[in-house]
Amino acid sequence: MQVLKLKDIGESGWVQRMRARVSSIPGRALVGIGDDASWISSPGSMLITCDLLIDEVHFLKELIPPRLLGRKSLAVNLSDIAGMAGVADYALLGLGLPRDIELKYLDDFLEGFLEMANEHKVELIGGDSCAGSVLTISVSVLGHPFSERPVLRSTAEAGDEIWLTGTIGDAGLGFEILKKCQRQELEIAQFHHSSLALRHFDPAPRLKVGERLAGLAKAMIDLSDGLTVDLGHILEESSKEQPLQAIVELEKIPLSEDFKKYYEGKPLESEEGFRIALSGGEDYELLFCAEQGSGGEIIKIGKELGLAVSKIGRIEPGEVPEIILLDEKGSQVPVPAVWFEHFPKEPQIPKG
Amino acid sequence: MQVLKLKDIGESGWVQRMRARVSSIPGRALVGIGDDASWISSPGSMLITCDLLIDEVHFLKELIPPRLLGRKSLAVNLSDIAGMAGVADYALLGLGLPRDIELKYLDDFLEGFLEMANEHKVELIGGDSCAGSVLTISVSVLGHPFSERPVLRSTAEAGDEIWLTGTIGDAGLGFEILKKCQRQELEIAQFHHSSLALRHFDPAPRLKVGERLAGLAKAMIDLSDGLTVDLGHILEESSKEQPLQAIVELEKIPLSEDFKKYYEGKPLESEEGFRIALSGGEDYELLFCAEQGSGGEIIKIGKELGLAVSKIGRIEPGEVPEIILLDEKGSQVPVPAVWFEHFPKEPQIPKG
Repeated sequence: MQVLKLKDIGESGWVQRMRARVSSIPGRALVGIGDDASWISSPGSMLITCDLLIDEVHFLKELIPPRLLGRKSLAVNLSDIAGMAGVADYALLGLGLPRDIELKYLDDFLEGFLEMANEHKVELIGGDSCAGSVLTISVSVLGHPFSERPVLRSTAEAGDEIWLTGTIGDAGLGFEILKKCQRQELEIAQFHHSSLALRHFDPAPRLKVGERLAGLAKAMIDLSDGLTVDLGHILEESSKEQPLQAIVELEKIPLSEDFKKYYEGKPLESEEGFRIALSGGEDYELLFCAEQGSGGEIIKIGKELGLAVSKIGRIEPGEVPEIILLDEKGSQVPVPAVWFEHFPKEPQIPKG
Repeated sequence: MQVLKLKDIGESGWVQRMRARVSSIPGRALVGIGDDASWISSPGSMLITCDLLIDEVHFLKELIPPRLLGRKSLAVNLSDIAGMAGVADYALLGLGLPRDIELKYLDDFLEGFLEMANEHKVELIGGDSCAGSVLTISVSVLGHPFSERPVLRSTAEAGDEIWLTGTIGDAGLGFEILKKCQRQELEIAQFHHSSLALRHFDPAPRLKVGERLAGLAKAMIDLSDGLTVDLGHILEESSKEQPLQAIVELEKIPLSEDFKKYYEGKPLESEEGFRIALSGGEDYELLFCAEQGSGGEIIKIGKELGLAVSKIGRIEPGEVPEIILLDEKGSQVPVPAVWFEHFPKEPQIPKG
């Protein structure tokens, strides 16, 4: 059987195919795919985010199944909306496609993208498809704040408690294991079914808990670059009037059973485990600051949604915006270096 | 003097630099660059478009000056909003950047982007910057219809006249000459100052005339893929109830003096001139259909804006959606083949 490639149907064939698939889904847009621009009747207050995902930078095309890549491409953008305590409404999908790409690959990618869209009631309303030397995915998401105002990064204050949803480090460790699979130290099929792989390949945007936190969280961010980098963003943005520091207690960092098991029960004593947990990135959990005394309500929300929420520290006035990591004895531990930099001075391995 | 590269300041350094530059411009956004998502107070009805521009597919980084690339990246998106008779409000800029790119290149690119934004009162409110194997630009633009409804592709009717703003073929010919420069048949410095080069490098989005056509044009599209392809889109989209054909009179096709001169006064008798004019693409003019009898008002608008508007044909009922090209004797001439296909069955030279 001949394998159908994109070039067998061309750009307009692919756009028609995508449009036919999308138009089978009921939608709210006044004009979706198929005109110069999309037309929507918008809520008065809107959130907009966009992310680029490029092969060999953000993912390894040879290793991530296309359906999961479709899901993840949308999920990382939805996570940004979740980080604002927002509701996602519409998505645009730009694709730069290698000229010899198979149609089946694109169909699977689109299926995953639409699956994730459907799970969060998001409508694909437009985009762009063109040639690209490597697979390049550009997603924009439009949404609106769940309550009157979104929750920003810049509104943390001294005295706030620092909270975290879920567990962190799993996706980062998943990627490390993936690289071992690449080096054939581990069987890839085995990895594909592990929980760590799924955290890496198929992150769940925390939109539901984000909505519930709309009245409670004072400042919030989604964890894409790792706890220390993203907590650093909250500190920098919130330190406009008074420098703030974050005191984080290492023993309160929420880690999964699989993460702990991989490091034989002592994850933070391993240099790698410590770095991955704190700055591995791609956790897509929510990090937020809340007033003291909100804990009961926060934990109740977590229980209702079946998602752990953990208090990991507090915000205090400081000399400069910085993170103070404390071990169980209360001794200060150095903050690990940034795990991934897009533009390193020295060459670096690609991100997963 | 050491040449500063992006990797000398890293991703966050570049985002801070961009943010500082943008925050010096007064804006309407409630939250712009610097949070998980941007936050705007939106008009009730919105238009959204996005386009990817990839080195060696949409442009040749070695040949287009970075300031003009910045201008063009936004202009091609603004043209989509113009094609809906819309007003552009906000832009998001995603950049996939080669790791050794110079900071000066990026500064110049951003300057051009902001110049174009300023000319059309568009505000840059967010985006994404990451590593990419080749320079990759993803732009999303949000706007609103100038009047209650945008002008769509799908609302042309039999009896309508077909109109065109400006002249076509110039950008396509500019690109052909550019390729000659690459092959060193022509001096690049000389070309850079020609009007054809400017049409290719620095297209002007027709937002102003688009707005004025809001009540007059019944169907409209911006010309990005060339007259025959884009007129074909209007026919296909408008043929839902009754198949429509377009009768186009070749002698009425508006061509610039420079275009005519290049082909020694007989542009459409040259096979190349004929193909470039009708399907060279990147014209970024507006093609629209209007009721018979609107001509006086349309020409008045053109005069007020100092932009030619030409009636090139009419819409009629047909057997299938198709374009009928007629020469000055009224004989039918074959429609030229598509000039550029992103996913050709056979290899093709990159687009400009």
